[in-house]
Amino acid sequence: MAKRLIPTLNRVLIEKIVPPSKTTAGILLPEKSSKLNSGKVVAVGPGALDKSGNKIPVAVKEGDTVLLPEYGGTQVKLGEKEYHLFRDDDILGTLHD
Amino acid sequence: MAKRLIPTLNRVLIEKIVPPSKTTAGILLPEKSSKLNSGKVVAVGPGALDKSGNKIPVAVKEGDTVLLPEYGGTQVKLGEKEYHLFRDDDILGTLHD
Amino acid sequence: MAKRLIPTLNRVLIEKIVPPSKTTAGILLPEKSSKLNSGKVVAVGPGALDKSGNKIPVAVKEGDTVLLPEYGGTQVKLGEKEYHLFRDDDILGTLHD
Amino acid sequence: MAKRLIPTLNRVLIEKIVPPSKTTAGILLPEKSSKLNSGKVVAVGPGALDKSGNKIPVAVKEGDTVLLPEYGGTQVKLGEKEYHLFRDDDILGTLHD
Amino acid sequence: MAKRLIPTLNRVLIEKIVPPSKTTAGILLPEKSSKLNSGKVVAVGPGALDKSGNKIPVAVKEGDTVLLPEYGGTQVKLGEKEYHLFRDDDILGTLHD
Amino acid sequence: MAKRLIPTLNRVLIEKIVPPSKTTAGILLPEKSSKLNSGKVVAVGPGALDKSGNKIPVAVKEGDTVLLPEYGGTQVKLGEKEYHLFRDDDILGTLHD
Amino acid sequence: MAKRLIPTLNRVLIEKIVPPSKTTAGILLPEKSSKLNSGKVVAVGPGALDKSGNKIPVAVKEGDTVLLPEYGGTQVKLGEKEYHLFRDDDILGTLHD
Repeated sequence: MAKRLIPTLNRVLIEKIVPPSKTTAGILLPEKSSKLNSGKVVAVGPGALDKSGNKIPVAVKEGDTVLLPEYGGTQVKLGEKEYHLFRDDDILGTLHD
Repeated sequence: MAKRLIPTLNRVLIEKIVPPSKTTAGILLPEKSSKLNSGKVVAVGPGALDKSGNKIPVAVKEGDTVLLPEYGGTQVKLGEKEYHLFRDDDILGTLHD
Repeated sequence: MAKRLIPTLNRVLIEKIVPPSKTTAGILLPEKSSKLNSGKVVAVGPGALDKSGNKIPVAVKEGDTVLLPEYGGTQVKLGEKEYHLFRDDDILGTLHD
Repeated sequence: MAKRLIPTLNRVLIEKIVPPSKTTAGILLPEKSSKLNSGKVVAVGPGALDKSGNKIPVAVKEGDTVLLPEYGGTQVKLGEKEYHLFRDDDILGTLHD
Repeated sequence: MAKRLIPTLNRVLIEKIVPPSKTTAGILLPEKSSKLNSGKVVAVGPGALDKSGNKIPVAVKEGDTVLLPEYGGTQVKLGEKEYHLFRDDDILGTLHD
Repeated sequence: MAKRLIPTLNRVLIEKIVPPSKTTAGILLPEKSSKLNSGKVVAVGPGALDKSGNKIPVAVKEGDTVLLPEYGGTQVKLGEKEYHLFRDDDILGTLHD
Repeated sequence: MAKRLIPTLNRVLIEKIVPPSKTTAGILLPEKSSKLNSGKVVAVGPGALDKSGNKIPVAVKEGDTVLLPEYGGTQVKLGEKEYHLFRDDDILGTLHD
């Protein structure tokens, strides 16, 4: 049975987006298209505390599509699915259509 | 006779959860199921002090099931049982059903 | 389809300026003219937070032509185009005619 | 003649507890029982100063039984007896029956 | 066409002073006289921000003759001329006749 | 002619105590008795400044007998005598009879 | 023509004191007497800024005779004379007769 994870502090739980290796029309995509390192925000922590004890709001929110750094993050497995945990300040940006 | 440990500052005493190597029905589980690195919070410190001398509340509480980093923590033995001490900001998140 | 990236914190999205290898008059430029490491600011983050929780304004703005350090920055690809992400304090200055 | 040491700042003077190698009934204890790295607090410093010049109270007090990290601390000899000095934030916790 | 650079934060744009290899009277100077590592301040940034968000005034100003550290600084080329960028706190002092 | 040294900031001038190699009764002391690394405070600086510009009082005072760390400190020679300079927070404690 | 240097921030310009290799009476001094690493303060910077933007007064003043660390400092040559620049907190103390 899969468990739900609530990250601590400014940690963010990410489900990486696996790029389709074929388009819907069945054309094989060149390899470099799989280089976009993006993910979906599944859960965010309550925020770290600043030096006065106030919570610093987390820079991204649940549902955001985010650009991830090439290295870093912690791989976690919940039930059958694989996720990654990042500190919010390691996330490079949010992606929009 | 087992002693009780009260952690200092923002330290958290964890009893690691050993995944069952068999299901209750007696079926051997594949090895990877033992990879979920989780534990039960047994005791928490009073919290570290911020720069103004106020206590920073510890990010987890007694009884929480937590996700632990793969490395780190200090192994301690109290009586016959083995525990681990982590700083609360090294704990990755809390697990919920 | 190209996606739009909004950088986090004090990150700045840069499109590097590729120096022309010929002048408009068709004269080949010597190789060293390609050494000016400059770029156009395409998008800026909302700013990092200072220790009191206030946003620190980003040192450059969209549309600025900036001088970049020789090393550093993170290469990102959005659609067919290549960009670089820098922290605003790694940008050396703004260029003006 | 043994001298008395008053530690500076947040230093704590510890007398390590040597586990009995025999029980009172004379039964030899297995070697691993000597692994519990604990000590008695003999003296504590006045506390370090925070950035506003206020003293930060030391996390343990004279008479406490404490759990020590496996490494670290400074060995000192006063008279015939051997002690260890630790910063209070290196002490893992206090032990209670 | 030469571009004008406005440095970011507390960066300072310097044009190094090349010591004359001959005096005006035509006498060759010994080699060690070229060791004085000085420059002219061409442009200064607006100043870095302190932790309260206030600008820290830059320690040197345009037109100052400054003593530079032997190492460090970033070489930049604007038009045909070569300059160096230094953080103001790396500049050793100002030179006066 | 010996000069007097007033240490800067939180520096402390120490004259190391050389343990007698014989007792007053003429009995040779075993070598380990020379291991107690202690000294007499000869002069203290005015104290370092905290972040608000207030002086932090030095943790030891002139005349104190102090326990020194095994390594560190700067050896200085004033006239014919040898001294050591330590930052006050490197001094382990004060010794009392 | 010798230039005058005004150090930046908390830098201090020092003229090292070269110990006489002979006494005034013409007796050669043993080599170790040259080990006292002292100098005369020739110029001091305006002071570094603390985090609130206030100037921190420099720990030594013009004319002081100071004890210098064995390593560190930056050698500078002004006119025919050789000087050294130190941060004021690297100066060990002031020397008085």
